[in-house]
Amino acid sequence: MKALVYHGPQKISWEEKPKPTIQQTTDAIIRISKTTICGTDLHILKGDVPEVTDGRILGHEGVGIVEETGSSVTRFKKGDHVLISCITSCAKCDYCKRGMYSHCENGGWILGHLIDGTQAEYTRIPFADTSLYPIPEGSDEEALVMLSDILPTGFECGVLNGQVKPGDTVAIVGSGPIGLAALITAQLYTPSKIIMIDPDDNRLAVSMKLGATHTINNKKENAIEKVKEITWKKGVDTVIEAVGIPETFELCQSLVGPGGRIANIGVHGKTVDLHLETLWSQNITITTRLVDTVTTPMLMKTVLSKKLNSSQLITHHFELPDIIHAYDTFQHADREKALKVILTNPAA
Amino acid sequence: MKALVYHGPQKISWEEKPKPTIQQTTDAIIRISKTTICGTDLHILKGDVPEVTDGRILGHEGVGIVEETGSSVTRFKKGDHVLISCITSCAKCDYCKRGMYSHCENGGWILGHLIDGTQAEYTRIPFADTSLYPIPEGSDEEALVMLSDILPTGFECGVLNGQVKPGDTVAIVGSGPIGLAALITAQLYTPSKIIMIDPDDNRLAVSMKLGATHTINNKKENAIEKVKEITWKKGVDTVIEAVGIPETFELCQSLVGPGGRIANIGVHGKTVDLHLETLWSQNITITTRLVDTVTTPMLMKTVLSKKLNSSQLITHHFELPDIIHAYDTFQHADREKALKVILTNPAA
Amino acid sequence: MKALVYHGPQKISWEEKPKPTIQQTTDAIIRISKTTICGTDLHILKGDVPEVTDGRILGHEGVGIVEETGSSVTRFKKGDHVLISCITSCAKCDYCKRGMYSHCENGGWILGHLIDGTQAEYTRIPFADTSLYPIPEGSDEEALVMLSDILPTGFECGVLNGQVKPGDTVAIVGSGPIGLAALITAQLYTPSKIIMIDPDDNRLAVSMKLGATHTINNKKENAIEKVKEITWKKGVDTVIEAVGIPETFELCQSLVGPGGRIANIGVHGKTVDLHLETLWSQNITITTRLVDTVTTPMLMKTVLSKKLNSSQLITHHFELPDIIHAYDTFQHADREKALKVILTNPAA
Amino acid sequence: MKALVYHGPQKISWEEKPKPTIQQTTDAIIRISKTTICGTDLHILKGDVPEVTDGRILGHEGVGIVEETGSSVTRFKKGDHVLISCITSCAKCDYCKRGMYSHCENGGWILGHLIDGTQAEYTRIPFADTSLYPIPEGSDEEALVMLSDILPTGFECGVLNGQVKPGDTVAIVGSGPIGLAALITAQLYTPSKIIMIDPDDNRLAVSMKLGATHTINNKKENAIEKVKEITWKKGVDTVIEAVGIPETFELCQSLVGPGGRIANIGVHGKTVDLHLETLWSQNITITTRLVDTVTTPMLMKTVLSKKLNSSQLITHHFELPDIIHAYDTFQHADREKALKVILTNPAA
Repeated sequence: MKALVYHGPQKISWEEKPKPTIQQTTDAIIRISKTTICGTDLHILKGDVPEVTDGRILGHEGVGIVEETGSSVTRFKKGDHVLISCITSCAKCDYCKRGMYSHCENGGWILGHLIDGTQAEYTRIPFADTSLYPIPEGSDEEALVMLSDILPTGFECGVLNGQVKPGDTVAIVGSGPIGLAALITAQLYTPSKIIMIDPDDNRLAVSMKLGATHTINNKKENAIEKVKEITWKKGVDTVIEAVGIPETFELCQSLVGPGGRIANIGVHGKTVDLHLETLWSQNITITTRLVDTVTTPMLMKTVLSKKLNSSQLITHHFELPDIIHAYDTFQHADREKALKVILTNPAA
Repeated sequence: MKALVYHGPQKISWEEKPKPTIQQTTDAIIRISKTTICGTDLHILKGDVPEVTDGRILGHEGVGIVEETGSSVTRFKKGDHVLISCITSCAKCDYCKRGMYSHCENGGWILGHLIDGTQAEYTRIPFADTSLYPIPEGSDEEALVMLSDILPTGFECGVLNGQVKPGDTVAIVGSGPIGLAALITAQLYTPSKIIMIDPDDNRLAVSMKLGATHTINNKKENAIEKVKEITWKKGVDTVIEAVGIPETFELCQSLVGPGGRIANIGVHGKTVDLHLETLWSQNITITTRLVDTVTTPMLMKTVLSKKLNSSQLITHHFELPDIIHAYDTFQHADREKALKVILTNPAA
Repeated sequence: MKALVYHGPQKISWEEKPKPTIQQTTDAIIRISKTTICGTDLHILKGDVPEVTDGRILGHEGVGIVEETGSSVTRFKKGDHVLISCITSCAKCDYCKRGMYSHCENGGWILGHLIDGTQAEYTRIPFADTSLYPIPEGSDEEALVMLSDILPTGFECGVLNGQVKPGDTVAIVGSGPIGLAALITAQLYTPSKIIMIDPDDNRLAVSMKLGATHTINNKKENAIEKVKEITWKKGVDTVIEAVGIPETFELCQSLVGPGGRIANIGVHGKTVDLHLETLWSQNITITTRLVDTVTTPMLMKTVLSKKLNSSQLITHHFELPDIIHAYDTFQHADREKALKVILTNPAA
Repeated sequence: MKALVYHGPQKISWEEKPKPTIQQTTDAIIRISKTTICGTDLHILKGDVPEVTDGRILGHEGVGIVEETGSSVTRFKKGDHVLISCITSCAKCDYCKRGMYSHCENGGWILGHLIDGTQAEYTRIPFADTSLYPIPEGSDEEALVMLSDILPTGFECGVLNGQVKPGDTVAIVGSGPIGLAALITAQLYTPSKIIMIDPDDNRLAVSMKLGATHTINNKKENAIEKVKEITWKKGVDTVIEAVGIPETFELCQSLVGPGGRIANIGVHGKTVDLHLETLWSQNITITTRLVDTVTTPMLMKTVLSKKLNSSQLITHHFELPDIIHAYDTFQHADREKALKVILTNPAA
């Protein structure tokens, strides 16, 4: 089969690889129908994720059709259409039992990371019964690709951890795909105001279409002052950090009001300053989270019932064999006005 | 001043009464701008609420303008526009501190019940600082009248107690004003399906306009069978009882799925059967509640930010002196296709 | 091997049966070390549980040693000491993912019910990885037998559903083994008062030793009046129903205060009256639950760290082959002052 | 009357001051029976709290007897025994309605800070109805002094924010009075292990008497290694920071396990490092809080019912006029092995 293979920093190629086979009785082999590229894949490409080694097939998102199942798999059979979760869950370990699939002792984020991934014609999914989700006939499968990673990430790490409630004020720092995923899933709880903060005017314009009530270009405007004005000097109830650098985390601390929450989604590479000299008395909550995908069934219901329009995040389409081109587009997201790209397997 | 006065079962008149005066330092006198009629007022009219005695001015809903304040009132001053809560809260007793204003030892539901109410040109509001809410300039005050009682009732007793969550399935038994208030506030949490059940086709049609995904006329259709079909035999996550008779509570028990909730809003006059012989093992939760109006600030934010359109519940308008006519319309709600009526004080 | 076999109402015998064998790759065979008898076993014996058919080995509690495992079992191996949960969980179905193992589509309560159980020298446990719990070396295994069923039942259905909090007042109606399990696990949350209500003076005396602060013999005293007195007329925060008949559920409704909870544990055979004509406005919550055993890991930590003394529930010891005698003792619990009996396999 | 008056850094004296009088209708004048000294008073004495100006009477804790009440006070009358909360709550503002009395727009921490305090023969308490708590006749009033500040602080900021649950592992960094208050109130939720970490062997010995299961002297031992050992390398569920310096907050980040909580109590004067480069993916929660004293009624029930022994924190007793001596003892807590001191007004 063909797959997108990593060969060290900045080196990827679409090349021939052996088709995966069942290794454990709990495995399933999936023929990929559609996949996508994640910001994390770009981190890998830069060499920032050293666990990813030469020869690894990338990708941890996608939908497909069951090709073969191990002998213990009971919930899926050949021909079933399935959603692949970016997080593999054994469902047996203490973390899985607590709903923290991200820290599964036998899984977690392994696809396109510690084992071969989904940017390929076929992929092997361990613990298939608890890491795949059935797709009902007639569903918009492209919309569901957004449920592999980006929607649960924005929702669990940003919205749920940020405890967004009806009537609340929310600020989201960063309006890339993850920030926008937080924006559209925050609306499941009907906050009264959602303020998007980003230096890119195009993305802010997209934010308004996707339901933001206010935008701030923090390259041109003083975000702290403007948020104070919007919130009658109180600060926001929830700030969602969707960038992952010290400057944006710093900003979040200036925006949150007493009793508020800072929900971190960003993947940070550096220690940040925490201003406990002022925040110690402000009754705030700061959370971090690697997505657990424990809300995938809930989110799937909202997408299938058309209450959540996840297709809004998709800007570009490619055929799967054209994936090198898709990576180029996604890497130049600003220039291309790209959010999420969909790669379709012409053979599926 | 003029007021709507109760003189025993079936006897009300619009007549002259002394203008109310400050009795406690915590009182405020409010000039009524707009008020409405509640289903509870009809119960009173039937003689079902014996605590209401001859001479009582009815009404527990409305918006108005502060006319005078007692010496301890600090949050309001003459000329302020205010929303009147149907529940008076002293903010000092154990129940108020727990957020159970409905059981306030010094207040609770007293307006138009144990003391004179709001269907008048003026009304006295005890514990004004914690029983009135400021209305920002330029607000749609008519829409806010719905916040005195019906919206918090549908929301707190039905939606919050029913723990409605994104993606859930909800059934609401009864699509009168209270059922519809539950319907529109349930959508603050984005359930995937909301099934309205009622014998009146007009109200079911209104339900569809207000966001229901399914309707069942339970005079013509088998509600149990149809709900099973809609929920793939699982039953619903939340059933909201918005009628108040044994038959509807019985129906709720047949609709709820394992792990689900039955949230009672209806005012019941009779003991009902509880089928513990089957439900004991079904992991269900049944709740009752007299509205606390503890969510009024939250709901006001959703209305003022146009996330919740409470005006949809208003079907008829009258001048306040024409209130006897308004009662007649509201009493024949089916014939008149009436939901909530608005009474405007021409002198305010 | 030998086992306790059901042959229809009132007929059980300790007799030879084939040793169980692995049927699914997820099974384990356990050599029973210690088991016990449950009130539910007595219901079966009376013929009240028609799904239990002639030839069935009874019992759903116990600890033992792993004898053999199916090929997919990864968390246990021959020789491991394990606790058997009364609830079998597949960990894959929607109910298991929601933590409602009681309604597992592939398991639930099946041991000694729909498949052979634990009152035997050996037993087969389906979905072993997620239905057994490892016992650390050196543990008091007898104390852990209480974790198969009775402690999680009292805790989940009574204490957790009843939302017991520090400082609360709790009434427990029924001081049999289940009521006492609720009593000792309620103390994990340090309520200020726990009132035990039962017609048996011996059990009330036991309750005082196990931490009750007040007892009421409701055959001799007016429980409603006495609870009013103890709670300054407010009623209790939580009432736990641990009997399962209409009279006791009726009593619970008279004891609960505004804002309180009625947590039902009892297995009911009849419809009960629910007094919505008074309770509709009392902001109460009623819950039902078949134990999920989702808190078994938490409870095991409290028992192993000596914070919870589950041995207090054990009154009698027998050798496993003497089980008919043990049933007789347990059936005459009043006469024998019996709570839980421990049956030890001399061959283990 | 006599009072302890602040005259700038390091200068306090027990001197004559005018007896306070009613200024607002919501005030009460309290004759102090017993008061105590807080670590915060020592911060003031060092000049670290610039809002405290020359001439201020210090102290924000105590019990006393109502001497006089303003005309709007309805819950208390002359002669009533009352507990004074360190936090004054108006009960009307948005923060009070949300239970965040610490940020009350008209109160908060003002006693002995922005207005005269409780280390005096008499004190004026604003918003008396919602800032005082009635003491039942016959109570141990000395034990209740601990409820003015230290117990709710340890409980709300440490235990509640740290979400301590039965069976959990808890580490408390700092075993001064606040750390010990967290230690004794954590036991209301029955964690399986409580590890106290402090450089003072005497305080660690006290911790063991007060219910710690493990102690670590972090001057002599490697706390990180030892906690790993105690928790089988998992880290603890909850870490409570009860010191307030960068080093201890740093330590907390090394002790918390995936999914765990860091609950900050310490008053910090400096920015700290937050290791988001590792913690971003660890699903942790960090909280800060100025005590709200919203749990005072709950804690009072546990103390009055003898479920919580707050007297254990008291080591020294003085007469109120001997308060300068008491300050000296409390300032040399290590040398004196002092925790909380009780000052008794001989005239009360």
